[in-house]
Amino acid sequence: MTDRIANAQLRGKVMSADEAAALIPAGAQIGFGGFTGSGYPKELPKALAARIKAAHEAGEDFTVNAFTGASTAPELDGVLAEVDGMGWRMPYQSDPTLRKKINDGTIRYTDIHLSHSAQLVAEGFCGRLDFAAVEATRITEDGSIVPTSSVGNNKTYLDMAEKVIIEVNSWQSLELEGMHDVWNGYLTPPNRPAIPITNPGDRIGDAFLTLDPGKVVAVIETEDPDRNSPFKPIDDDSRAIAGYLLDFYANEVEHGRMPKNLLPLQSGVGNIPNAVLDGLLKSDLENLTSYTEVIQDGMVDLIDAGKLTVASATAFSLSPEYAHKMNEGAEKYRRSIVLRPQEISNHPEVIRRLGVLSCNGMIEADIYGNVNSTHVCGTRMMNGIGGSGDFTRNAYISAFVSPSTAKNGAISAIVPMASHVDHTEHDVMVIITEQGLADLRGLAPRQRARKIIENCAHPDYRAQLTEYYEAALASSKAKHTPHDLAHSFDFHRSFLENGTMRLS
Amino acid sequence: MTDRIANAQLRGKVMSADEAAALIPAGAQIGFGGFTGSGYPKELPKALAARIKAAHEAGEDFTVNAFTGASTAPELDGVLAEVDGMGWRMPYQSDPTLRKKINDGTIRYTDIHLSHSAQLVAEGFCGRLDFAAVEATRITEDGSIVPTSSVGNNKTYLDMAEKVIIEVNSWQSLELEGMHDVWNGYLTPPNRPAIPITNPGDRIGDAFLTLDPGKVVAVIETEDPDRNSPFKPIDDDSRAIAGYLLDFYANEVEHGRMPKNLLPLQSGVGNIPNAVLDGLLKSDLENLTSYTEVIQDGMVDLIDAGKLTVASATAFSLSPEYAHKMNEGAEKYRRSIVLRPQEISNHPEVIRRLGVLSCNGMIEADIYGNVNSTHVCGTRMMNGIGGSGDFTRNAYISAFVSPSTAKNGAISAIVPMASHVDHTEHDVMVIITEQGLADLRGLAPRQRARKIIENCAHPDYRAQLTEYYEAALASSKAKHTPHDLAHSFDFHRSFLENGTMRLS
Repeated sequence: MTDRIANAQLRGKVMSADEAAALIPAGAQIGFGGFTGSGYPKELPKALAARIKAAHEAGEDFTVNAFTGASTAPELDGVLAEVDGMGWRMPYQSDPTLRKKINDGTIRYTDIHLSHSAQLVAEGFCGRLDFAAVEATRITEDGSIVPTSSVGNNKTYLDMAEKVIIEVNSWQSLELEGMHDVWNGYLTPPNRPAIPITNPGDRIGDAFLTLDPGKVVAVIETEDPDRNSPFKPIDDDSRAIAGYLLDFYANEVEHGRMPKNLLPLQSGVGNIPNAVLDGLLKSDLENLTSYTEVIQDGMVDLIDAGKLTVASATAFSLSPEYAHKMNEGAEKYRRSIVLRPQEISNHPEVIRRLGVLSCNGMIEADIYGNVNSTHVCGTRMMNGIGGSGDFTRNAYISAFVSPSTAKNGAISAIVPMASHVDHTEHDVMVIITEQGLADLRGLAPRQRARKIIENCAHPDYRAQLTEYYEAALASSKAKHTPHDLAHSFDFHRSFLENGTMRLS
Repeated sequence: MTDRIANAQLRGKVMSADEAAALIPAGAQIGFGGFTGSGYPKELPKALAARIKAAHEAGEDFTVNAFTGASTAPELDGVLAEVDGMGWRMPYQSDPTLRKKINDGTIRYTDIHLSHSAQLVAEGFCGRLDFAAVEATRITEDGSIVPTSSVGNNKTYLDMAEKVIIEVNSWQSLELEGMHDVWNGYLTPPNRPAIPITNPGDRIGDAFLTLDPGKVVAVIETEDPDRNSPFKPIDDDSRAIAGYLLDFYANEVEHGRMPKNLLPLQSGVGNIPNAVLDGLLKSDLENLTSYTEVIQDGMVDLIDAGKLTVASATAFSLSPEYAHKMNEGAEKYRRSIVLRPQEISNHPEVIRRLGVLSCNGMIEADIYGNVNSTHVCGTRMMNGIGGSGDFTRNAYISAFVSPSTAKNGAISAIVPMASHVDHTEHDVMVIITEQGLADLRGLAPRQRARKIIENCAHPDYRAQLTEYYEAALASSKAKHTPHDLAHSFDFHRSFLENGTMRLS
């Protein structure tokens, strides 16, 4: 047994993952820790999947309902999806096997804003919570636990669950202690106070999660690493998009609409956001701050370079190399990194107050500025809305980024009508592709259409987008937002039928 | 001259509306007071429209860009639209003439969340503001002004405008003084503090609007009433919808998910919300509160009955009879009514903190719970999103209400795919028609589809909705959100071509 379990009562609950999994009955609702491949329980889900598989082979029905922070990893979402072990899943996922089961209709998935998931559970809107299963770096003498590489919804799940299972992971650095900020003052209405954060680095709570040790039914010792993917080298498109965004910010500073050190940065995960961070690293900008969901490699570089003074998030999303670096350097990094519950890291109240600059990826945008972040061709769920709505809706400036085409040009990211809308025309301020940037602030729909087609669409698709728009403008009786509903989805239908959005 | 202008300098600025309108050049950007037919300037826009008409007759180009609080009245939006006097309009409108010009392509209209409009101007995203034109009950000795029946964006427009024109309206009761709460502490990022409201009735600011008297170029004396419409008598459909909503609330209370006195109520304007208020009046509920956009007749009745302890809003939307009542009884009513700037009445921060129960009308909802609040058949702008997004996105429970059909059954409010999306599946919790209520919390898309069709669609449309859904489920390769993009808009196309959504 490791020396990471200081509480005597909980030392007595140490057992194998199989023994712990045996405590979970069919139909259980489980709140798992985990956010973008960080800080999820790693042994329990595998053991639970084995138990479910055996039950299915014995002809028994057995699924659980799984709530998480956000996406997890193959060791959680993957193994449970593989055995058809989940009935209902919320609020975000990105595992290929799980995605497949969601889209073949096997697993029910509710795609919720990440800032909403904890309160929906706390308010009782998701039914009882039977179990919380979370990861800890250590358990303190009084039975509190120190979170690992994500905080996510752990606080709420621990508060609301009837029973608790803790994985104590000795791969996670003990020096992460002090990086987390868990606020216990956030109650449900009508007793909810103001969130006392006015700067990204403000600490308002505890460095640990308190819980009733009497609820703990199992403690599992593990030593498995988080499972994050390396970033790809920055490509030309990403660099071009990052360049347009940074030029745009510079212009806002020049016109007095933003301070010289910008405003707190948010960015989604991925190669384009990483290119933006790289662009910031090479810029003259200083005293940057970040109020975002996840800390990725580029932010660590900005901290190392002394350009980013503080980053607030709920989790890491680091390459294996940088995860190692974080574990080695946690004592240093915790001076400039705060990890919070996701309902605080993504809270509309704080995001609007701080004036966050949001930048998120998208599947497609339409010519009027409606953005689809979730459904390919309106039907196939990719990952979910995640925190993109939390940040976009309340950002000082909201931006969406994507290469103008995908699948070797067969898909245009700019379409006549978005096949699913996650961010409405009321919320989207800036759209950027490698072709250019469209600043939509203050524009009426017809102005937006011309600007998005001219500035953002790939040249190969400009003519057919213009053709759609002109025909819609001519035929539409009402011309506020011209559309021809017989042809709004011709791009998508062509892709589904012929494998390309190019209309012949 | 009335005795309502105590400041000597501003008494010297009294002039006729024609003289004031002559100060406004072509191309001016004007921030007008006014919110749902309350507290808008009444003489200046008419005089300005006459000036514009004369200029057009002389062959000159002359338009202004008009920002407001929300909708105004024929005396403002109507007269300026009639003479093609507006180039650009934001953030909300409901005037028939203006709507016609927006939809024939003459006037550019940007449809923005009401909580966003002030900050977009303050942040400089809408360009310079040349004029603010607002209504006052009186001007104090130091040149401050007491607002009338709405606050809207007046504070921001007065702060940001280069020049100010004030209409002092002696129709408005002097006893309104003390009802308003104007907070001057709301700065732009990075200096924005928490909004110190934790109860709907909290007063955090001043009872008047301060301004630099040196910016005032004209004061106009008027005595014109606000132009509000009477409500229709409550019909059976409205009463049925109100009944479902109140039963739903009662069930939430019974299950411990809401306090006995509910949570602060928000409701859109119209006959269904008025029926809900009437239902509350007849219920056993007590100690109700409201944190909403507008005070309508039913709320005044609830205050009179001692059931509503406090109502916070930014404006009145009263029938002529109740407007008279308010003017007579303002001294009494101001104890239980607070009128705030709309960026505070509609602020996400406060709405989520208080746990507001939102209830708004809609044009249509689709079977997956996406709601269209703005565009008929995806193209024709009705009024705008108004505050519905501010409240829905952050509500404790968000509800949308509509009769299940319109135009004598030719239009179904439930459609396969919303022809425009203003509120996404991530945000819509409850949909109600006179047929019934669909509680969508925690449901995946396929579950939502069956529930919405069964509970909310009109019987005449259930079969064709089910047919669409089943066919989409069968043909859709991805089954998370089944759609058949060749037929998603068949209802709308049939209406446009044949005048009915009934498919033959």
